[in-house]
Amino acid sequence: MEKGRLEAFSDGVIAIIITIMVLELKIPEGVHGADLSALKPLIPVLGSYLLSFIYVGIYWNNHHHMMQAAESVNGAILWANMHLLFWLSLVPFVTAWMGENNFSRWPVTCYGIVLIMNACAYTILLLALIRHHGRNSVLAKAIGEDWKGKVSIGIYATAIAMSWLNSNISFILYIVVACIWFIPDKRIERQLVGEEPPCESKG
Amino acid sequence: MEKGRLEAFSDGVIAIIITIMVLELKIPEGVHGADLSALKPLIPVLGSYLLSFIYVGIYWNNHHHMMQAAESVNGAILWANMHLLFWLSLVPFVTAWMGENNFSRWPVTCYGIVLIMNACAYTILLLALIRHHGRNSVLAKAIGEDWKGKVSIGIYATAIAMSWLNSNISFILYIVVACIWFIPDKRIERQLVGEEPPCESKG
Amino acid sequence: MEKGRLEAFSDGVIAIIITIMVLELKIPEGVHGADLSALKPLIPVLGSYLLSFIYVGIYWNNHHHMMQAAESVNGAILWANMHLLFWLSLVPFVTAWMGENNFSRWPVTCYGIVLIMNACAYTILLLALIRHHGRNSVLAKAIGEDWKGKVSIGIYATAIAMSWLNSNISFILYIVVACIWFIPDKRIERQLVGEEPPCESKG
Amino acid sequence: MEKGRLEAFSDGVIAIIITIMVLELKIPEGVHGADLSALKPLIPVLGSYLLSFIYVGIYWNNHHHMMQAAESVNGAILWANMHLLFWLSLVPFVTAWMGENNFSRWPVTCYGIVLIMNACAYTILLLALIRHHGRNSVLAKAIGEDWKGKVSIGIYATAIAMSWLNSNISFILYIVVACIWFIPDKRIERQLVGEEPPCESKG
Repeated sequence: MEKGRLEAFSDGVIAIIITIMVLELKIPEGVHGADLSALKPLIPVLGSYLLSFIYVGIYWNNHHHMMQAAESVNGAILWANMHLLFWLSLVPFVTAWMGENNFSRWPVTCYGIVLIMNACAYTILLLALIRHHGRNSVLAKAIGEDWKGKVSIGIYATAIAMSWLNSNISFILYIVVACIWFIPDKRIERQLVGEEPPCESKG
Repeated sequence: MEKGRLEAFSDGVIAIIITIMVLELKIPEGVHGADLSALKPLIPVLGSYLLSFIYVGIYWNNHHHMMQAAESVNGAILWANMHLLFWLSLVPFVTAWMGENNFSRWPVTCYGIVLIMNACAYTILLLALIRHHGRNSVLAKAIGEDWKGKVSIGIYATAIAMSWLNSNISFILYIVVACIWFIPDKRIERQLVGEEPPCESKG
Repeated sequence: MEKGRLEAFSDGVIAIIITIMVLELKIPEGVHGADLSALKPLIPVLGSYLLSFIYVGIYWNNHHHMMQAAESVNGAILWANMHLLFWLSLVPFVTAWMGENNFSRWPVTCYGIVLIMNACAYTILLLALIRHHGRNSVLAKAIGEDWKGKVSIGIYATAIAMSWLNSNISFILYIVVACIWFIPDKRIERQLVGEEPPCESKG
Repeated sequence: MEKGRLEAFSDGVIAIIITIMVLELKIPEGVHGADLSALKPLIPVLGSYLLSFIYVGIYWNNHHHMMQAAESVNGAILWANMHLLFWLSLVPFVTAWMGENNFSRWPVTCYGIVLIMNACAYTILLLALIRHHGRNSVLAKAIGEDWKGKVSIGIYATAIAMSWLNSNISFILYIVVACIWFIPDKRIERQLVGEEPPCESKG
């Protein structure tokens, strides 16, 4: 099966997810004023939106990289992809809840849970792709250890635990994970051009 | 006529349908709290969303398979496709209504009616494709009997009748149909690679 | 300039326009009931939605046909296309207004005005394409007289005038135009395959 | 890395941004009337929408031109593009705020700030593309001086300052910039066909 339409559909869904989050960003009914103070309650909403925009952007970037290394897809991959899109589609909901409540405990916890589920869904998609292409494929080699995925899940779990002490720490931890992932997956790019990975120790 | 733009447009519409359903998933106005109990009224909404996400996902998957077997399209196919998209576009509405009312009788009935209309629209599209490609085409052979389509419509009708006794039974029947369709249509894949169908008896 | 991205962007915008209209289709706040009577106020909304769905579908179909005959685009065509998309984007607004007010006079008039503007924008796009491709191009020959466009504008104007007597007549006239356009533009298909138009007199 | 999916994703996001702005265009709750006067409070909203529609259209047009000159993309370009999409995604919010408040001072100022940030993000994307393709590439030559970008930022800054005297002047200045950009970037088209730029002095 060709991967073209899977990419197109995923692009569509991710584009909508990343954009509908901005619909939450509206002046509250009672305050429909032209004053700058009307923007003040929107600051946490905007912060929450920015974080989620970066997260969804990271997922799109990595999805892009991963799919470029793929040669074809099968039924299991289609559903693993749909599963990832389902968890991504919950991001706007938890983003809105977290922003509205000024990063209080429960919304921050739920945000972390959705992020963990996204990370798991991404890993499942990765495994489905590796099984389809074989252990010795460019794709499998390109991904290698996937320490980033493991570290992220660990940090998310820590952030959820921390939200019971201080939800601001959780928020900072989410930013840390975003920073880790910010650079698109060089491993795949390198494998694709057949270049030796340089001995850098970033990350 | 080429099929590329029909696929792209359908992908766009289905991507939007599957994503706007999540807009219904919001903390109710009065309960804008940071407490976990604020999520409780959302449980039926989330269940309803999950079911519809899977249904729309199944339609996309099967549309993908069907169109891959198609070689070209004509005016009748364009309109049969538009007709399917119309019924799919009503899914978010009945999903929201069913979730809000905790799966009570009338919303569950209407959900079933929309599912039946979708199944019919899908069958009409299939017939339009077969007529365009000819009875002996790969596509026609690949589809064969289409027992799944017939069985689904039967179960939907049963679910609608059951909703007068107990709407939970209807909900379970909708899940049963989703399970039947979960596996993408192997028939088409098999025909495309020219492989003999193995003597499996799943389903 | 290549036409691929113009098609992709137009597909995206039209897909969103056709889908967001369904967001208007919601049980009113006060009536959030599980009863069938909750659906009753939605009947004009659904009728209005169905009509607009068909209209936007017709525009997409004809856009598809027109662009298939085009070989390349220029700056003027990009903007003529954007102009058409602007007027199409107002369709959900007038659709909602007309549905909410049960097809009363002013909403029906505005709906007609938006349809006229769409017809004009489509004609402008057509002229821009013909000027770019030349009077003797396949595209110019394929389009020929464009009597459908002229007749439609005439009927829209009649419908607007009629809305002062009885807005139901206007609604029926809008349906008449939809029927005229329902069949995708055979002229272009014929020219593309180089086939002589048969001596039919339909329409 | 190929540019295809970056274009598709950007098209998707921009298509959604340009279309969801129309969701703001609704008859206010209290006035749900069928009278023409119900449209009156919508006039500034419509004006604001029209301006933003043109702006987003300009960005799409120029993005289209820029990407056509590009041959490939890298990680930095992906993120520079995501950064541009972020600022574009804030356009619907400031558009709605400006329209609701009849072009009063603070909303007009914020609108200007978002436009400046968009202009900067566009410039950053341009620089990332030039660095990737090299100083002597077709793309770098095609862009040349980019006086339009510099002039725009200057006018935006003036408009923001002017909003403290009279926000209508700011609005007119935004229209002026839109007019400057209205014509798609001929420079790139010219370079692509290898044609000498004629000695025109428009702009």
